[in-house]
Amino acid sequence: MTPKQAADFLKTHDNYLILTHLRPDGDTLGCAAGLCRALRQAGKTAHVLPNPEVHALYRPYLEGLLAPEGYEPDTVVSVDIAARGLFPDGAKPYLDRVDLAIDHHPSQEFFAKETCLEAGRAACGEIVLEIVKELGALTAEIAAPLYVAVSTDCGCFVYGNTNAAAHRAAAELIEAGAPVAALNKRHFRTKSFKRLKLESALIAGMELYENGTVAVVATTLELMASLQAGEEDAEDIAALAGVLEGVRTSVTIRELPGGRCKLSLRTNPGDLNASRVCALLGGGGHAAAAGASMDGTVEQTKRAVLEAIRKVKADA
Amino acid sequence: MTPKQAADFLKTHDNYLILTHLRPDGDTLGCAAGLCRALRQAGKTAHVLPNPEVHALYRPYLEGLLAPEGYEPDTVVSVDIAARGLFPDGAKPYLDRVDLAIDHHPSQEFFAKETCLEAGRAACGEIVLEIVKELGALTAEIAAPLYVAVSTDCGCFVYGNTNAAAHRAAAELIEAGAPVAALNKRHFRTKSFKRLKLESALIAGMELYENGTVAVVATTLELMASLQAGEEDAEDIAALAGVLEGVRTSVTIRELPGGRCKLSLRTNPGDLNASRVCALLGGGGHAAAAGASMDGTVEQTKRAVLEAIRKVKADA
Repeated sequence: MTPKQAADFLKTHDNYLILTHLRPDGDTLGCAAGLCRALRQAGKTAHVLPNPEVHALYRPYLEGLLAPEGYEPDTVVSVDIAARGLFPDGAKPYLDRVDLAIDHHPSQEFFAKETCLEAGRAACGEIVLEIVKELGALTAEIAAPLYVAVSTDCGCFVYGNTNAAAHRAAAELIEAGAPVAALNKRHFRTKSFKRLKLESALIAGMELYENGTVAVVATTLELMASLQAGEEDAEDIAALAGVLEGVRTSVTIRELPGGRCKLSLRTNPGDLNASRVCALLGGGGHAAAAGASMDGTVEQTKRAVLEAIRKVKADA
Repeated sequence: MTPKQAADFLKTHDNYLILTHLRPDGDTLGCAAGLCRALRQAGKTAHVLPNPEVHALYRPYLEGLLAPEGYEPDTVVSVDIAARGLFPDGAKPYLDRVDLAIDHHPSQEFFAKETCLEAGRAACGEIVLEIVKELGALTAEIAAPLYVAVSTDCGCFVYGNTNAAAHRAAAELIEAGAPVAALNKRHFRTKSFKRLKLESALIAGMELYENGTVAVVATTLELMASLQAGEEDAEDIAALAGVLEGVRTSVTIRELPGGRCKLSLRTNPGDLNASRVCALLGGGGHAAAAGASMDGTVEQTKRAVLEAIRKVKADA
């Protein structure tokens, strides 16, 4: 359905529970916060399902919005969730009873009764913005989390998915009172000492393949421990390797406990299809940004992804 | 005058020479290229005065637009030049014969016969965009350098000067054909190995003052030589120190040959006034971004700027 139809749907239902995705990012969390506030402003009961993996940076946006224990919703809405495999554990009881999925991923699995999908959008936050405007006034407290949603998903308007519509959404949200300078400072211009050290260690260990067009960086458990760095210090580290001159594909491997690795792939628009590479490794995502998790060491993961890259290149 | 009046002025004159400022950045160069192309499209003769300091990254935008030797203009236009002191050597013969100054700096000195100043604009490129639209069609080849102008002056929509109007200008320019992904990749997501090494050296040598709220980094001639890094590798390095958590004012000192130092100051919006600090040191700029050049060693410059910061804080 269109954003207008989704708004009509939301107007005629009540007692909402809003679901966010596994390893929640600014887009899913900002959408949940903005939509929840807009529904409450429209006189509805609405809560966001607690997601245990929320980064400290995003927690303030959810304050007062989390569903109390035992809350029984009548209507379940998911935001920015593309696939069943991306439901966090706590959301699994709702796998087959999502009433409305709002999403921007081309890989959307259509798991919900109704789906509002606009795959050309840089961020799900843009779609929620359209819905929110239909629901009522766009206040500053709704605009702030939606600005976080839109801006984080396009790296503050620098990633390859940035387009005119994302800029127009940002303009509307700023005009509605989103404190752009403070939010940009918070999300894009603040790094911990640990993060700075981590970045410099990754740059030092960067490896180049395929005539310097593919960069691989890896965060091992050992490196993370030596820097006393946590999950939060490594957030969005996948964008790091791609900045080196000549690099067209960047691979970031994160060693996980238990002999597994998480892999993030970033490619230039129109270049190698990251989603196809990750599909070969059991993952998925967008054409320019995709990921996968797999068993194996960092070295094994690296060999597997380099092979998958060569295979997709050969097929292209 | 307003952008509309500036466009009317430009329609009724001819044989243009466009001037850019000392140490030219993306805004002044993008404005010059976009305006020059728009004037030519409107049937005028127009050239950009060669500026010897143009970074290699920006040279393609000026291709075919530079004034031939001996060109005698009838009308001189400056873009993004705030003060007489910011005329490059080659532009000094025109100091007293600028017919129209187009600018967004609050510190504009009104050196020209006519001035089109919009001090609330994040970039001069936004004003040139308004003028260009009055002159005729906004083509892709005009939109590209203007996108460079707008985006570089606000750090690709992340700096404190970013506002709704800057986003709307970006949206228009992208819709007109500015290749946003390629331009962002080129200007904001590409770093040389030297640049990455320079950043990591500066982070290693970062000093904190005033309870960790003031960060000072310095590029000495020795450091630059050891990295074989040049002017181009240090561009916009002033934004680096400000990302550390808790830092509200960042000072970047660049040692110049001949016992001089160049100093850049970045502050959070609403915080310390950077322009007032730099004014005490013979420089100037915006409230959140200012600079100065002074005689002395890196150490002497550091002491002078820390003292000026304390003085402005005490006066506030």
